Amino acid sequence: MNLLIEEKLKQAAGLLEEGDADLWLTLVRESSRTHDPILDYIFEGHVVWPSAFMVTRSREAFAIVGSLDALSVESLGTYKVIPYVQSFRESFLPFLEKLGPKKILINYSSETATADGMTHGMYLYLQEILQGTPFRERLHSSQELIGSLIGRKSQEEVGRIQRAIDATLGLFEEVTRLLKPGMTEKEVAAYLSQRIEENRWKPAWDVETCPAVFSGPQKGGAHSSPTDKAIQRGEVVNIDFGLMIDGYVSDLQRSWYLLAPGEKEPPEGLKKAFRVLIDSVDLAVKALKPGVKGVEIDSLTRNHITSQGYPEFPHALGHQVGRCAHDGVALLAPPWERYGNIPELTLEEGMVFTVEPRISLPQWGVVTVEEIVKVTPQGGVYLSKPQKELILVG
Amino acid sequence: MNLLIEEKLKQAAGLLEEGDADLWLTLVRESSRTHDPILDYIFEGHVVWPSAFMVTRSREAFAIVGSLDALSVESLGTYKVIPYVQSFRESFLPFLEKLGPKKILINYSSETATADGMTHGMYLYLQEILQGTPFRERLHSSQELIGSLIGRKSQEEVGRIQRAIDATLGLFEEVTRLLKPGMTEKEVAAYLSQRIEENRWKPAWDVETCPAVFSGPQKGGAHSSPTDKAIQRGEVVNIDFGLMIDGYVSDLQRSWYLLAPGEKEPPEGLKKAFRVLIDSVDLAVKALKPGVKGVEIDSLTRNHITSQGYPEFPHALGHQVGRCAHDGVALLAPPWERYGNIPELTLEEGMVFTVEPRISLPQWGVVTVEEIVKVTPQGGVYLSKPQKELILVG
Repeated sequence: MNLLIEEKLKQAAGLLEEGDADLWLTLVRESSRTHDPILDYIFEGHVVWPSAFMVTRSREAFAIVGSLDALSVESLGTYKVIPYVQSFRESFLPFLEKLGPKKILINYSSETATADGMTHGMYLYLQEILQGTPFRERLHSSQELIGSLIGRKSQEEVGRIQRAIDATLGLFEEVTRLLKPGMTEKEVAAYLSQRIEENRWKPAWDVETCPAVFSGPQKGGAHSSPTDKAIQRGEVVNIDFGLMIDGYVSDLQRSWYLLAPGEKEPPEGLKKAFRVLIDSVDLAVKALKPGVKGVEIDSLTRNHITSQGYPEFPHALGHQVGRCAHDGVALLAPPWERYGNIPELTLEEGMVFTVEPRISLPQWGVVTVEEIVKVTPQGGVYLSKPQKELILVG
Repeated sequence: MNLLIEEKLKQAAGLLEEGDADLWLTLVRESSRTHDPILDYIFEGHVVWPSAFMVTRSREAFAIVGSLDALSVESLGTYKVIPYVQSFRESFLPFLEKLGPKKILINYSSETATADGMTHGMYLYLQEILQGTPFRERLHSSQELIGSLIGRKSQEEVGRIQRAIDATLGLFEEVTRLLKPGMTEKEVAAYLSQRIEENRWKPAWDVETCPAVFSGPQKGGAHSSPTDKAIQRGEVVNIDFGLMIDGYVSDLQRSWYLLAPGEKEPPEGLKKAFRVLIDSVDLAVKALKPGVKGVEIDSLTRNHITSQGYPEFPHALGHQVGRCAHDGVALLAPPWERYGNIPELTLEEGMVFTVEPRISLPQWGVVTVEEIVKVTPQGGVYLSKPQKELILVG
């Protein structure tokens, strides 16, 4: 990851320039317990004592860390390390005074967890240290910097995401050969977990819901676990699944249909719903260009589905993927209270999004696909070979 | 873990009573990314949308969570779940109004990471939701509740820590048989990592420094990784190591000495230093009683060591262990700025502490032990069979 860290530190210095800020400060302690997610992009490992990881506009990176943590930060080779024993404050304040930053970015955001790694206690600690200095009034949210830092994927990053996607789609093909009436959701999940282990990959999120396997009509949501329910003919099976390979993840969904006795193809109503779903995905993908707002993409899809008489899906259309399945800041989301101002953010070139509408059909189950798409000036480019038809199991 | 969760929720309700508070609110989102460490004590798994886990004085537990997360919270069986789709606020505010709490505890602390799981952004989000309500002025830190909740270990919890300790000490005995001049620090570490894997245990902290292996005089601290340095005769070897078994950890250190050619026992100076070290541990352990301040224990040990002419150790004397290696809130620590007010906190019965002074000897290396001790009214009770002499390698 060392090269990726250098890449990100350089990118961060450029983003300070773009945002007319002088210092980006990541202030953490006991980082294995309360973990600022951005720390993984700029440091490998954990620190125990209060620690400041700092990037300046002049492209220098500094770390003020406890003496016991100093060696592990120094060994990374990317920071000028200032170790302390008794007092963080006594190293930190002189550093700030020497640098004299006019605008300091710190990691908080009421709107997105990605840029909200600073705990409230560390914020109060910083406030207290800065009492009586001009710096106290110069603190701003790093949300925009972090949104771009994580969002604009380098070629290396896209390559890693692609490997995770390809491996996941390969496993989905195995599922197609495996699926049989009578298998339980848990059995399907166990097969995929076993294949992860055999390949020494990792699940992209919690193993309890990665994979999530749903069969037939049900009330569970995307974040619930597979059950002992046996899969029946005449049901839609949906799997939500992703892999982490080389530190980057996929997050994909596919829908299968188990033909009922006598059926050669899915019932008309199901086929029509799936066609509407796929059309809605295509609408979104075509529109995924830099400068467009996430909410505009979401509503294109959402409106297409409701205009055809189907219920609205109860979640956002898509999120970014990268180091984790819910990556970055910008979202393809509706203007609901819980999303704050995030749906209003504009997309940037190089961002990688999922597109994952769903249609719940009381007769057959939930049809979904989840594709992964890169934002380019010409519109979205599929990184996942998109699903265009229900996968049929005879 | 389900029974442990019920145990903790019940304990929390009692602590609200003790602290004259009405509601303990753990407010999180994307909990796999920015993770409030206390969540593991009261919930299994992760939530994505803004979620409130709440314990009331009347021993009822409520969770307001996004609809996609609801099923996984419901399946725990310990919370009355209130699911929402579009707006957290619209479920949360009426709940508060109905309950009418006079004192609400939330998880922030400038002094300890353990009680500081709320991000600053979530704090701002809560402030905004509570604008114009009386509840905004009723928010207080849950530090004291969390300190007791984690600190007072149940019999089951102590039993799990004991298992981790016993297994670790067993591996240290294997190391005694293994150690030879010419082995590198990394080879010793690799042996222990392999033994962890064979037993399907986990390291108690980051694998990079668990175990930490130090040989001879060096400048590295307790949080740096083993190197390719070969272990020499006439050197002290120190290992800092712990295991996680059944969700609870050990954290122990032992010191070995490789006799120099012709030596039958360690040099006088080394023996004397080790004796001073062990005496300082005994002083601390005898004094580990409820009501004593952590700083008092630390200074007993620290002063004994410096009074014998040795340098002060550059860290706290000890920390709690439990679910993680740096557990709980109260510490056996000196009154340094970086520890804030934490050294002034008093010990409670049932807390489990490490005691880990060190003496650096420029000739031979660093002598340390790290014992694990339970606080009782009669003084500390060793959970680890204490090291009394340097372990000699011929």
